[in-house]
Amino acid sequence: MSDPHSATLWGLFEIALDGPSAGNPFLEVTFEATFSQGGTTLKVPGFYDGEGVYRLRFMPQAEGTWHYRTSSNVAALDGVEGSLSVGPAKAGDHGPVRAMGEHFRYADGSRYINIGTTAYVWNLQGDAMEEETLATLAGAPFTKIRMCVFPKHYRYNQNEPPLYPFALIKRGTSEWGGSMKNGGWEFDCDRFEPAYFRHLEKRIADLNTLGIESDLILLHPYDRWGFAHMSADQDDRYLRYVVARLAAYPNVWWSMANEYDFMFNKTLADWDRMIGVVAEADPFGHLLSVHNGFAPYDYSDKRITHVSIQRPYTERIALWRKQFGKPVSDDECCYEGDIAEHWGNISGRELVHRFWDGTVAGGSVTHGETFYNEAENLWWAKGGKLVGESVARIAFLKRILEAGPDEGLDPVPTTGSYKTMMAGGLDHANLRELINPNPGEEGWVRVGTHFATAGQPHRYYLTYFGQNQPGEFAVPVPPNEHYRATLIDTWDMTEAVIAESVQRGDVLRFKAKPYQALRLNRIEA
Amino acid sequence: MSDPHSATLWGLFEIALDGPSAGNPFLEVTFEATFSQGGTTLKVPGFYDGEGVYRLRFMPQAEGTWHYRTSSNVAALDGVEGSLSVGPAKAGDHGPVRAMGEHFRYADGSRYINIGTTAYVWNLQGDAMEEETLATLAGAPFTKIRMCVFPKHYRYNQNEPPLYPFALIKRGTSEWGGSMKNGGWEFDCDRFEPAYFRHLEKRIADLNTLGIESDLILLHPYDRWGFAHMSADQDDRYLRYVVARLAAYPNVWWSMANEYDFMFNKTLADWDRMIGVVAEADPFGHLLSVHNGFAPYDYSDKRITHVSIQRPYTERIALWRKQFGKPVSDDECCYEGDIAEHWGNISGRELVHRFWDGTVAGGSVTHGETFYNEAENLWWAKGGKLVGESVARIAFLKRILEAGPDEGLDPVPTTGSYKTMMAGGLDHANLRELINPNPGEEGWVRVGTHFATAGQPHRYYLTYFGQNQPGEFAVPVPPNEHYRATLIDTWDMTEAVIAESVQRGDVLRFKAKPYQALRLNRIEA
Repeated sequence: MSDPHSATLWGLFEIALDGPSAGNPFLEVTFEATFSQGGTTLKVPGFYDGEGVYRLRFMPQAEGTWHYRTSSNVAALDGVEGSLSVGPAKAGDHGPVRAMGEHFRYADGSRYINIGTTAYVWNLQGDAMEEETLATLAGAPFTKIRMCVFPKHYRYNQNEPPLYPFALIKRGTSEWGGSMKNGGWEFDCDRFEPAYFRHLEKRIADLNTLGIESDLILLHPYDRWGFAHMSADQDDRYLRYVVARLAAYPNVWWSMANEYDFMFNKTLADWDRMIGVVAEADPFGHLLSVHNGFAPYDYSDKRITHVSIQRPYTERIALWRKQFGKPVSDDECCYEGDIAEHWGNISGRELVHRFWDGTVAGGSVTHGETFYNEAENLWWAKGGKLVGESVARIAFLKRILEAGPDEGLDPVPTTGSYKTMMAGGLDHANLRELINPNPGEEGWVRVGTHFATAGQPHRYYLTYFGQNQPGEFAVPVPPNEHYRATLIDTWDMTEAVIAESVQRGDVLRFKAKPYQALRLNRIEA
Repeated sequence: MSDPHSATLWGLFEIALDGPSAGNPFLEVTFEATFSQGGTTLKVPGFYDGEGVYRLRFMPQAEGTWHYRTSSNVAALDGVEGSLSVGPAKAGDHGPVRAMGEHFRYADGSRYINIGTTAYVWNLQGDAMEEETLATLAGAPFTKIRMCVFPKHYRYNQNEPPLYPFALIKRGTSEWGGSMKNGGWEFDCDRFEPAYFRHLEKRIADLNTLGIESDLILLHPYDRWGFAHMSADQDDRYLRYVVARLAAYPNVWWSMANEYDFMFNKTLADWDRMIGVVAEADPFGHLLSVHNGFAPYDYSDKRITHVSIQRPYTERIALWRKQFGKPVSDDECCYEGDIAEHWGNISGRELVHRFWDGTVAGGSVTHGETFYNEAENLWWAKGGKLVGESVARIAFLKRILEAGPDEGLDPVPTTGSYKTMMAGGLDHANLRELINPNPGEEGWVRVGTHFATAGQPHRYYLTYFGQNQPGEFAVPVPPNEHYRATLIDTWDMTEAVIAESVQRGDVLRFKAKPYQALRLNRIEA
């Protein structure tokens, strides 16, 4: 056993060993290690990186000394031992994002504000455009990007990727005809192309430098190469390979699929099995979810850490939070754009509305942009430049959230939202309780005057009026507490203090217009 | 038996007889008649109109000779016989509106376009303001007004009515404090005030002259006088009295209640009984519905002719049509205004959006306006002047509907709306069918490109894009048919022919902006 290696908390520690390159090492060679510290033992999978090199990556979960020992069916890779001395996290390293209750937080306990965008295959557009995307992201508010491992075949997505994830046997066509057939493409899906995954890792590391999480889509239906139609064995081997390569990157989330329910050749039992493969292979417990097309997955599954849903109805986030007790991210509520497709042509104003609507419902919403251009470089697929109106307003919302409570925002039940209650479906039996949540008050009046509010009780309330445009607002805070009232124009990006000190029952009056919000910050008084 | 009286089809024929005025005729005197023609016999209720006068009103349902004979427990009113010779309807008289399938039509078969507004107690504001309301209505697009029989106690509604529907015993207070108590008011609810109802009739006749239906709200919870808290006997007697007085007016609809579910002292059994009272008393089968606050009534009840619902989700009209097989009117989808209450402060743009959204869902939507003014004369309650931005756009929509198919608009199933399907709730099992309604096509692509459309197949399609802003649209008409394509800006109120002849699969391109619609009119080609 050699001197201990140095490592840092949540940093990437890698072991590289030489081993066999003959035959098909992807199928024939097993390679893993156990890492232990005190009573903790983690089983960490290794992987073949081509040209006789085997790698194994570890993300230390605690400071202090860790010991490791490899095991393999190949002597050269078996029984290799060592230790590493893990120091404090580097400045800016917060570890992976975790689900804590109904919020996201970094592993070090610091706050993570989930502001996602979507650029499914930005990482497969060649270096020039990929660098442009990174430059755009550096100036944008996003803290998460939804992106695919596999290349994408879809309208506006006919270009070939620079590399393929598997060994190419025969080229096919790249024509768009709505066909789900393979178009003549043939790959050896038992043989990974390490260079493809090295490039993916490079881009994930680039994102990490920018403080951006990679919500990595492992499978998707938009395919002409056959990667959506592999055998169950191949799917599982692929998932294990991705996890082995990437789990030591702190900024990785596992999105089992985009629109899992549009992969018609896979059953719910397949998804259940594949979730198990990923959850079991990952030693570090990264976030894991399944993104739907029409039918939301069953988010009550214990292995699923958060709700990653597609729905235009952002106000229902409050209900899903309550239903599943997990953080909720509406990762497709339609994109700002002008293409023909319904999901890709809402206005910037409407997208900003959905961001606010989802925020005061206690969750988060993901951005995407689909403005057509002749080169067919749409941000939602390929990255590049952002041209829409929403992004600046999303940055404004992010600044407001940053200045808000560290715990994040919870829906405030005492100011029940009419709209949310309607969405929840009511029956006659429970009506009175809902209408009159506060005994002694006239509930049917009360309900009508309240809007969706999120905050932290006794400290901070953020009410969003949406398409409504009240000209007055009765302050709904608890008795005998004083608050500063700020009117927010979510589109013009202005904040104006309209009262330095208000209390319960005070009536604020202001100019009525749509898309305003009102913030109440507790003051000493 | 005297010479036959003259009458016209759907005109109001009235018999007045002198009878007792002592005691309490409302309780003690029964009075009705049978009207017969051939095999048809109608039982028509009479009513006491005060000062010893008894009246009975008949609306002839067919031309030709009708015979009548009264019956009463008072000799002077019993056994009076006569006949009437009914000629053709007067010009402009179309008879009552009926529900025919999932559409409204007049009894003479001509088309009725349901464009409602809301002015709950416009008829109780004194002649000057009431005349102003009628002048406003004369210049507005509305063909229906939702209005109450009883006066209204609510925020912005503290003024006393000029008269009361029952004999006043003791005055109370008119203070607004959210209290549902009677505030010291006392009435003899066994004794109607005929002058109150005569004034109501006058206003209903005024509306008829303007071609406006009166969707008459019989009961409501906004009360300080005790009219929402009468005994079951008093409720039933009141309902029979209103029906006896008003059923011969062709432009009356029965709205059993506004927000029935906010009348906490009444049970579902009460509503069931009262629907029966009205349906049985009315010889002429006027439209009848129950308007909800939160919980929609069970519209599958056979006595309920149409869905008069309160919901902000206008796109669900298509589902309710299908569920109940009746016409659907979303009679409260929130009002254009700036007051504090959620339901009363959406923008004109949003209200116009909901009108279009409901229209392409195959139903209708009702207008209301709640802009605050110092006099607290809000249109939604008191009538007066309209100041909002929606009314002109609603008139524009009405002109488009008038120029459309006489049958009205049906949702077009072959161009399924993503949004509507989402609202309907999907499960995994029926997913494939919904995603791919047309075997042989790639459903998951197809669905995404389609928007809510209504029309008449092979002739007329009206697609509304709402908050979406596509820049292109693939013409979805049946094969081998040619259509003229018109782009409609629902807010700027413009119509522009963008293609004189298009067919299935042609792609229209136009400037992307929200709130546009596209109309396809079949042409010979």
